[in-house]
Amino acid sequence: MPETDYDALFRSALDRLHGERRYRVFADIERVAGRFPAARWRRPDGETRDITVWCSNDYLGMGQHPEVVAALTETAQRCGVGAGGTRNIAGNTSPLVDLEHELADLHGKEAALVFTSGYVSNQTGIATIAKLIPDCLILSDAFNHNSMIEGVRQSGCDKKVFRHNDLAHLEELLREARDRPKLIVFESVYSMDGDVAPIGAICDLADRYGAMTYLDEVHAVGLYGPRGAGIAERDGVMHRVDVIEGTLAKGFGVVGGYITGTAALCDAVRSHAPGFIFTTALPPAIAAAATASIRYLKRSAAEREAHQRQAARTKVVLAEAGLPVLETDTHIVPVMVGDAELCKAAADRLLERHGIYIQPINYPTVPRGTERLRITPSPFHGEAHIARLADALVEVWDALDLPRAGTVFVEAAE
Amino acid sequence: MPETDYDALFRSALDRLHGERRYRVFADIERVAGRFPAARWRRPDGETRDITVWCSNDYLGMGQHPEVVAALTETAQRCGVGAGGTRNIAGNTSPLVDLEHELADLHGKEAALVFTSGYVSNQTGIATIAKLIPDCLILSDAFNHNSMIEGVRQSGCDKKVFRHNDLAHLEELLREARDRPKLIVFESVYSMDGDVAPIGAICDLADRYGAMTYLDEVHAVGLYGPRGAGIAERDGVMHRVDVIEGTLAKGFGVVGGYITGTAALCDAVRSHAPGFIFTTALPPAIAAAATASIRYLKRSAAEREAHQRQAARTKVVLAEAGLPVLETDTHIVPVMVGDAELCKAAADRLLERHGIYIQPINYPTVPRGTERLRITPSPFHGEAHIARLADALVEVWDALDLPRAGTVFVEAAE
Ligand SMILES: Cc1ncc(COP(=O)(O)O)c(C=O)c1O
Ligand SMILES: Cc1ncc(COP(=O)(O)O)c(C=O)c1O
Repeated sequence: MPETDYDALFRSALDRLHGERRYRVFADIERVAGRFPAARWRRPDGETRDITVWCSNDYLGMGQHPEVVAALTETAQRCGVGAGGTRNIAGNTSPLVDLEHELADLHGKEAALVFTSGYVSNQTGIATIAKLIPDCLILSDAFNHNSMIEGVRQSGCDKKVFRHNDLAHLEELLREARDRPKLIVFESVYSMDGDVAPIGAICDLADRYGAMTYLDEVHAVGLYGPRGAGIAERDGVMHRVDVIEGTLAKGFGVVGGYITGTAALCDAVRSHAPGFIFTTALPPAIAAAATASIRYLKRSAAEREAHQRQAARTKVVLAEAGLPVLETDTHIVPVMVGDAELCKAAADRLLERHGIYIQPINYPTVPRGTERLRITPSPFHGEAHIARLADALVEVWDALDLPRAGTVFVEAAE
Repeated sequence: MPETDYDALFRSALDRLHGERRYRVFADIERVAGRFPAARWRRPDGETRDITVWCSNDYLGMGQHPEVVAALTETAQRCGVGAGGTRNIAGNTSPLVDLEHELADLHGKEAALVFTSGYVSNQTGIATIAKLIPDCLILSDAFNHNSMIEGVRQSGCDKKVFRHNDLAHLEELLREARDRPKLIVFESVYSMDGDVAPIGAICDLADRYGAMTYLDEVHAVGLYGPRGAGIAERDGVMHRVDVIEGTLAKGFGVVGGYITGTAALCDAVRSHAPGFIFTTALPPAIAAAATASIRYLKRSAAEREAHQRQAARTKVVLAEAGLPVLETDTHIVPVMVGDAELCKAAADRLLERHGIYIQPINYPTVPRGTERLRITPSPFHGEAHIARLADALVEVWDALDLPRAGTVFVEAAE
């Protein structure tokens, strides 16, 4: 019998990635609490260097907030580390129950349900909700995150993809679907381009055509709205969205994900979702840290204001330096490169020469031809940081002869 | 246009569960570090009570181990709480890189890859590995965990299910598959019945028929083998298994999951698995706690020995009391009830009257007709705990007139 050389298959899959210049190398970073965005980079040769992080999704630096760190350490000292079981079997700890109440309150919903990550909340949440709706048709934004796409796929339901943020196309698909049950699945802030969905107008369409709405606010919770509940809160339409999904890992600086909605919906997902049922619950200390972060950001708007201010400043300074900054309405600052290899070379040079860490964003995270550096200013990136960033980028842009402001970047045909 | 009442659909899904007596109520538990298995139960009316936990999967109580708690709190104070990004974008922290080295060493493999949970490691790990093998046929044990089943499904590959631990049936399927690439997917300790796979014999078949092997050691890591690497280590066959998957949430007492295997395999999964790529990395403090736990259990066998001793003692004492203990070779002590409602009633009475917390295990976690209390003794469950448990069970068994030792439990036809 001819032997399959399995390891050779894995090696050749890696060769393909190298060949397409898509092989990813992870930078080994040590965060330093209280000094964000300063961090230490452990080079492949073992030497460590001080760097400045400009690509963290701990957008507000809440991961180092003293109240958040204290909640984690105190709860770990009181309750131990792990949850010790699934939610059903010994893992339903009080801090986790409290966290769900906090989240339901944050979004003005009857209930909330916590998952091990935002990824899992989308994947098993969307799949389970759609499966519980007989003959459901899912209408999915073309730019939805992989976790939502996997959730849609796992549901086994019919799906139609509407062009990104395109209300006319969405309406056309809703009309075609007639009185069939429909679930509209979309995001508020799209994290790679930094643009925002017209949530209110989508809810109008949902009302008109009898559809249910599921909104991913992963890149907005903590960051927008008077209490940090996201773009739907800021826009005054939070009560109109049926399901709001979020993460505890970005604006809130911890880890974990959740959905909020009616009591019946959350209870039904709790009772049916395999990705919720058959996994160990989040540790109580993590839940307590997340609760502390949410509570803090409910009452303090200072971080949100500083965040917007520094993001706006960064955009202005980089644009004035002639760099090709993508215009966005949000805190996300993409600087376009348009080529995978050059994008990686730019990031490598920034790190090696300037101690500035910005991960290159290549296919499949963004379409080919639109490769970029995705910069995420925080309240802790001050005027001096921004000036140093601009200088470093200009040096790199000159050295590598990268495209300037005004260049048009188009998605490459495959 | 007729409106769909979405919420009514969720309510009726819940009504169906209530109707089938499958609706689950989670007990709200507060763990107390340093006092495991003592905990506090928060009743639905808000009152709290001291209880003893007899169903935790923190099998060795490592979640409260001072070295583990200290690693968590020290790392959080040094690095903050969250990872701040995906592994690729800012989230690849040094403690996580160190954890992967520790895990590769534990299992004697070239490399390891950490995921947010054991569930995710199986789901996205199996799906990705199988997809990278052209024309792969997956051979899956009939009792595999839901996370493995979802991984097999998500791969889109052909699959055949072999009867649980049935070597003859597995061989038949392997032979039928001829020279097609084949992946055998199975567990070491099956967590509900507590029986063990013939790992060496399965590796013999894999060698003979040119198959690759993927072994879930979730209920064995930390607990078996000279260094706590699991059943494959204990049986001296660890080097023969291609991929060993495990959790950081049970024997190690923290949270997270992993696979180990060749460098090429782990790198290929790292580069292709959506459930790995598109999600925030585990917090550095969690990674450090897991590393501390693994290191401790590599050098200390005392917990493993005490665990086996107390599990064996529990089985003897309960059997002598005439309770229908399922015979197992492992640390898991199932006491059979055979009816969903009675199983729940028994658990409720144990908690209310005796302050003993054992979650009822009903369909779909086990087949109908084989409902049970699943008891997990730990090194911290001493002689007095066991005596109190036996007395309480006998009281409950008498009060509810439950089946005694010698009863035969058969899977109910649907
Ligand atoms: C839009 C969106 N949804 C969900 C997720 C997953 O959230 P988490 O990191 O908590 O798994 C991400 C990224 O991580 C995301 O960008
Ligand atoms: C056999 C098996 N594999 C995997 C898992 C999932 O592991 P985790 O709890 O780390 O998600 C479980 C249970 O939780 C399990 O019983």
